[in-house]
Amino acid sequence: MSNRAPFDVYLQEITGEVTEALKHILPEHWDVPRSLTEAMQYSLMAGGKRLRPLLVVAAAEAFGAERKAAMPAACAVEMVHTYSLIHDDLPAMDNDDYRRGKLTNHKVFGEATAILAGDALLTHAFYSIVQSGRQSGVSADALLSIVEDLAELAGARGMVGGQVADMEGEQGMTDLSQLQYIHLHKTGDLIVFSLIAGARIGGATEGQLEALSVFGRDLGLAFQIQDDILDLTGDEQKMGKKTQSDVNQQKVTYPYFIGMEASIAEVKSLTQSAKDALERAELPDASRLMEIADYLMSRDH
Amino acid sequence: MSNRAPFDVYLQEITGEVTEALKHILPEHWDVPRSLTEAMQYSLMAGGKRLRPLLVVAAAEAFGAERKAAMPAACAVEMVHTYSLIHDDLPAMDNDDYRRGKLTNHKVFGEATAILAGDALLTHAFYSIVQSGRQSGVSADALLSIVEDLAELAGARGMVGGQVADMEGEQGMTDLSQLQYIHLHKTGDLIVFSLIAGARIGGATEGQLEALSVFGRDLGLAFQIQDDILDLTGDEQKMGKKTQSDVNQQKVTYPYFIGMEASIAEVKSLTQSAKDALERAELPDASRLMEIADYLMSRDH
Repeated sequence: MSNRAPFDVYLQEITGEVTEALKHILPEHWDVPRSLTEAMQYSLMAGGKRLRPLLVVAAAEAFGAERKAAMPAACAVEMVHTYSLIHDDLPAMDNDDYRRGKLTNHKVFGEATAILAGDALLTHAFYSIVQSGRQSGVSADALLSIVEDLAELAGARGMVGGQVADMEGEQGMTDLSQLQYIHLHKTGDLIVFSLIAGARIGGATEGQLEALSVFGRDLGLAFQIQDDILDLTGDEQKMGKKTQSDVNQQKVTYPYFIGMEASIAEVKSLTQSAKDALERAELPDASRLMEIADYLMSRDH
Repeated sequence: MSNRAPFDVYLQEITGEVTEALKHILPEHWDVPRSLTEAMQYSLMAGGKRLRPLLVVAAAEAFGAERKAAMPAACAVEMVHTYSLIHDDLPAMDNDDYRRGKLTNHKVFGEATAILAGDALLTHAFYSIVQSGRQSGVSADALLSIVEDLAELAGARGMVGGQVADMEGEQGMTDLSQLQYIHLHKTGDLIVFSLIAGARIGGATEGQLEALSVFGRDLGLAFQIQDDILDLTGDEQKMGKKTQSDVNQQKVTYPYFIGMEASIAEVKSLTQSAKDALERAELPDASRLMEIADYLMSRDH
C-alpha cells in the first residue's frame, strides 16, 4: 500500500475516467438524431460529482476486480442519475432553470427533447450494463442480477417512487417518516445499487451484498441529510444553485423536522453505522469505501 | 393441427392473458406510492391491441417454447410501448387529451405523475424481462441479449430516436426517407424487438434472428403506413381518436408523399416481403406469425 494514491488523487482519477467514458457512451456506428445526442451529452457533461460511479468502481475494486470491468456499470448509474435530474428539473416537476450553475436541459433543448433525452439515458443505462459482460467477462448471471437490481432500485419501488412521494410531500408533508421514505428511495436506492453492482462485479457473497446494502442505505441517508443541511447553510457558489431554494419552495427538510444540530448529529451517527456495516462485509480491501464515507460526511458542497 | 383455434380466438386468448398479467405486474410486496401504481395501471389497462406482446408470444411459440416463458417479455414490451404513448401525449409533445377514447394519462394524473409513470414503466420492463428467466429457465445469456436488444431498439438509436426525428419532422419534413426513418424507428424497432425476444426465448439461431428482424422491419413499416392510411380514411369510432388529426396537426404521412393508392400498394408489397423473410427463417411452425401478418394488413382500425 506504499504507492497508494492520496484520496483526492484517487477521486480525481476516477471522476476523469468516468467522464471520459461517458463522452463516448453512444456507440459511434449508431444513427441517432444529432439533437438527441447533444441533449444527452449536455447533461452528462454538466459536471456532476460522479459519486455513484465512484461507488461502483470502489466497491468492485474492494473485491480486487479490475476497474475496466466496473466502468460500464459505473457509467450506467450516472446515466440513470442524470436522466432523473433532467426529468426532475422539468417545468411540470421542480421547474428549475439552473443546475450546477448551468441552464437545465429543457432550457437549452426544449421540454420535448429533454424528456426524450432522459428516456434515452435511462434506456441506455441497461445497454451499458450488458457491455460490462461483453467487455470483461463478468458472468451473465451477475449481469442479469445487476439489471434486476437497477430496474428495482431505480423504478417504482425505488428512485421513481421516491420522486413521486417527494412531489406529493410538497403538498403537505406531516412527519419525518415520510421524509425518510423520500430520502431513502429518491437518493438512497441508487447509492445502494451502485455498491451492489460493484460488489456483484467483484464476485460478492450474499452476506456481503446484504452488508453493503446497509452501508449504502445509511450512507445515502447521511448524504441526503447533509444535502439538506448544506442547502440551508452552504455557500451559494459551491452548491452551484441558489441555496435556500428548498426553503423558498417550501420544501421540507431534515432540519425542518428535527433542527440543525440534531440533523448534524444524525449525519455522524448514520455515517458511523454505515462504516460498521462495511466492517461486517469483510471485504478484501474496504479502505477506499471507508474514505468515501468520511469524505461524504465532511464535504461542504 | 385439427384442434387449432381460429385466429380470432387465439388473438383474444393472448390479449386476455397479457392483460391479466399486466394487472399484477408490480410485485405485491413492493411499497409503491398509490398514485404511481394507479397511473401506471391506468395506461396499461387503457385497452391497447396488445400487438407487441402477441408477437413475442407467437414468435416464442413458433419455436415450440411454452407461452409462460414468453409472458414476462411480452409484458415488458407492452410496458415500453405504453410508456412511450404516455410521454408522446404530454403537452410538450403531441399534447393529446384523448387516446383510445379515454383521457390521456396526464389529463387524469397531472403532468408530473404522467412523466414519472412513464419512467417507471420503462424501468420495470427490464425487471420483467429478468423474470422470464427466474420463472421458466430461459438461459441467462438469452435474457441478457434480450435486455441488450430492448435497450438498443427502444433507446436513442431506436424508438426514442424515431420520436425525436418525428418531432423535428413536424417542423418541416422534406422527403420520404425522413418519414421512413421515423416509421422504422418509432414503430418498427419495437416490433422487431418483440419478434427477436420471442425467438431468443424459443432458442433461435443467428440466421433465424436475422430473418425475423427483416420480417419485423417490413411488417412494422407496413403496419405504420396502414396506420397513416387508416388515419386519413378510417372510421372515427374504430380508431378511438379523432381521424385526420394528423392532417390537422400538419403531420406528414405516407399518402402525403406518394398518394393513397401507392401507399396501399406499399403495405401489400411490404407484407409480402415480410412473409418471404418469415419463410426463410424456417421456423418449426410459422403459421400464427403468417396469420398475424395478414391480419395486420387487412385490419380497419
